[in-house]
Amino acid sequence: MNQVFLKTLAREATVHTPVWLMRQAGRYLPEYRATRARAGSFLALAKTPELACEVTLQPLDRYPLLDAAILFSDILTVPDAMGLGLYFAEGEGPRFERRIEGEADVAALPLPDMETDLRYVMDAVRLIRKTLDGRVPLIGFSGSPWTLACYMVEGGGSDDFRRVKTLMYKRPDLMLELLRRNANAVAAYLNAQIQAGAQAVMIFDTWGGVLGDGLFQKFSLAPMRWVHDALLRSRQEDGIEKPVPSIVFTKGGGLWLEEIAAIGCDALGLDWTVNLGSARARVGQRVALQGNLDPMALMADPAQVQAQALRVLESFGLPQAGVGHVFNLGHGISQFTDPEHVTALLEAVRDFSSKQRKSVECA
Amino acid sequence: MNQVFLKTLAREATVHTPVWLMRQAGRYLPEYRATRARAGSFLALAKTPELACEVTLQPLDRYPLLDAAILFSDILTVPDAMGLGLYFAEGEGPRFERRIEGEADVAALPLPDMETDLRYVMDAVRLIRKTLDGRVPLIGFSGSPWTLACYMVEGGGSDDFRRVKTLMYKRPDLMLELLRRNANAVAAYLNAQIQAGAQAVMIFDTWGGVLGDGLFQKFSLAPMRWVHDALLRSRQEDGIEKPVPSIVFTKGGGLWLEEIAAIGCDALGLDWTVNLGSARARVGQRVALQGNLDPMALMADPAQVQAQALRVLESFGLPQAGVGHVFNLGHGISQFTDPEHVTALLEAVRDFSSKQRKSVECA
Repeated sequence: MNQVFLKTLAREATVHTPVWLMRQAGRYLPEYRATRARAGSFLALAKTPELACEVTLQPLDRYPLLDAAILFSDILTVPDAMGLGLYFAEGEGPRFERRIEGEADVAALPLPDMETDLRYVMDAVRLIRKTLDGRVPLIGFSGSPWTLACYMVEGGGSDDFRRVKTLMYKRPDLMLELLRRNANAVAAYLNAQIQAGAQAVMIFDTWGGVLGDGLFQKFSLAPMRWVHDALLRSRQEDGIEKPVPSIVFTKGGGLWLEEIAAIGCDALGLDWTVNLGSARARVGQRVALQGNLDPMALMADPAQVQAQALRVLESFGLPQAGVGHVFNLGHGISQFTDPEHVTALLEAVRDFSSKQRKSVECA
Repeated sequence: MNQVFLKTLAREATVHTPVWLMRQAGRYLPEYRATRARAGSFLALAKTPELACEVTLQPLDRYPLLDAAILFSDILTVPDAMGLGLYFAEGEGPRFERRIEGEADVAALPLPDMETDLRYVMDAVRLIRKTLDGRVPLIGFSGSPWTLACYMVEGGGSDDFRRVKTLMYKRPDLMLELLRRNANAVAAYLNAQIQAGAQAVMIFDTWGGVLGDGLFQKFSLAPMRWVHDALLRSRQEDGIEKPVPSIVFTKGGGLWLEEIAAIGCDALGLDWTVNLGSARARVGQRVALQGNLDPMALMADPAQVQAQALRVLESFGLPQAGVGHVFNLGHGISQFTDPEHVTALLEAVRDFSSKQRKSVECA
């Protein structure tokens, strides 16, 4: 198997900088749009293991330079399995039929059963692992407890997070109870993905960055630590010393890297506002770094895309034992991306990072 | 006149922490909604000096504890005066009839004449100064060159800034030419507001934080430095040694405070992700700090609002000569705010910060 991604998460030396792209199985690919049309809806696509497997592998088939696959699924499968009724209104984002308003709603939230309520996800993981047949590692994922809570309380996306923040400021106890339940479910969900075959897991803390300093630590970071603690316990119960590596990505969390790096994760996802060299100096000895090209850089011409990719690699600096860099975007790839530009990007990362290592060896 | 705000910007000792609120003249006030209804439209309100003056003073009349007034106007008056045709579709954000697409559009952008094209703004400033009659200082403002460019290229608001970033990545030269024109116009605009009576100016860099590290410095920060350089030159030409103080607020710019503090401004606006104590340690000897309560904290009960306000004051730490803190929100106040909660907030800031100073004097 291509071990470059997993070795980098372990901060071991590799022959090049590994790369994958958030949302790499997505609407920018015509083959994805064809499968999506066949499925009839986004949720049907996500809930049918054969189709989820098909789209997960599409970018790997098109781009042999990708170093990892990521499970194709939705970020809101867990609250859906808790009974909130996920749906997608045409041309809009995700919505829930029922949203969390008060104590009774929180108390009624069940811990979903991973092999029944969320069996379609685990079946997809198993099928993808089997179909990948060792080509590249498979990443599983979940939304963070706070990010899930945002959607669960707002009932969908939000501009100002008024409902979820009102609950947090007025009823911090109830918010923490909701987050505790979410953390239990997220831990069970990631654990089940690992048992089904995921070789790394990523927590998308998409909305952690909307919280104030102090509140982020209490309402987003601490629940992500609970998830890590639970994962570690589960692995220990299984007699496995080292859990599979985890990546935590708090969008807009650049000010809190030291604190995020301390919760037990193996890597930090970084958005493009963070200078990789500074991040490396701050936390590079403790965690690997993943990121951080602006997805909109892919809108430029291929040569310009490549120049921007080199800027990212150069900002991280020369490879060195004990630090690790996984090249990625700082957010999901845009549906408006030209697939040829992705080819240019991947070639630049592979070429430049291989040469970087040779220059280090010669020096 | 109440000098507490201006003294704090100069980092001189004051008897309490001054406070004003971004968008303090706004929809959360019933008296504002009444004037807005009388005006017929938001733009009519902004473009009629008597009405702009009326709403600017409304929060001062309701809240005697406010330490500053801010000109009521729109952030997009400058591109409107450049001929782009600002309008507001019902229930939506600002839109332009014409947007910037290519070289010809940029080349055609005129430098507006401040006393004809934007006379309604200068008349409002003069009328507000006269009507305030020395109660509190008046803050003028402008959008940053980059923030204006975002709206000018997108044609309105945006989720992903695809158009403006595509232009930036594909045609950095043309983007810089647009920013140069915007910077000239912003400098002339702020300068005219100062000559009309503004006693401090604020630059709202609302969208600087969507730029990657390295690109922020080139496409948002540098143009704001050009504005400051131009303001300084104008004041020197007028034989005035010290220009009026300026505040720069880059939302999401917490990683770049040192660089922003170095462009010649007197204060930094901070959003709520930034810890005030950390910011003080980083740049507090060079600039005053303004912020940074989450506007959504005002959704909680009054006692909870006050507790959150104290957290902000405590995070800044004890007042001391050579540092300055202007209490504010980290973003504009929400239209859903209960005006009574603002009273609770202002009382807490005044009481606590006065006592803080007495405790320092006694120590």
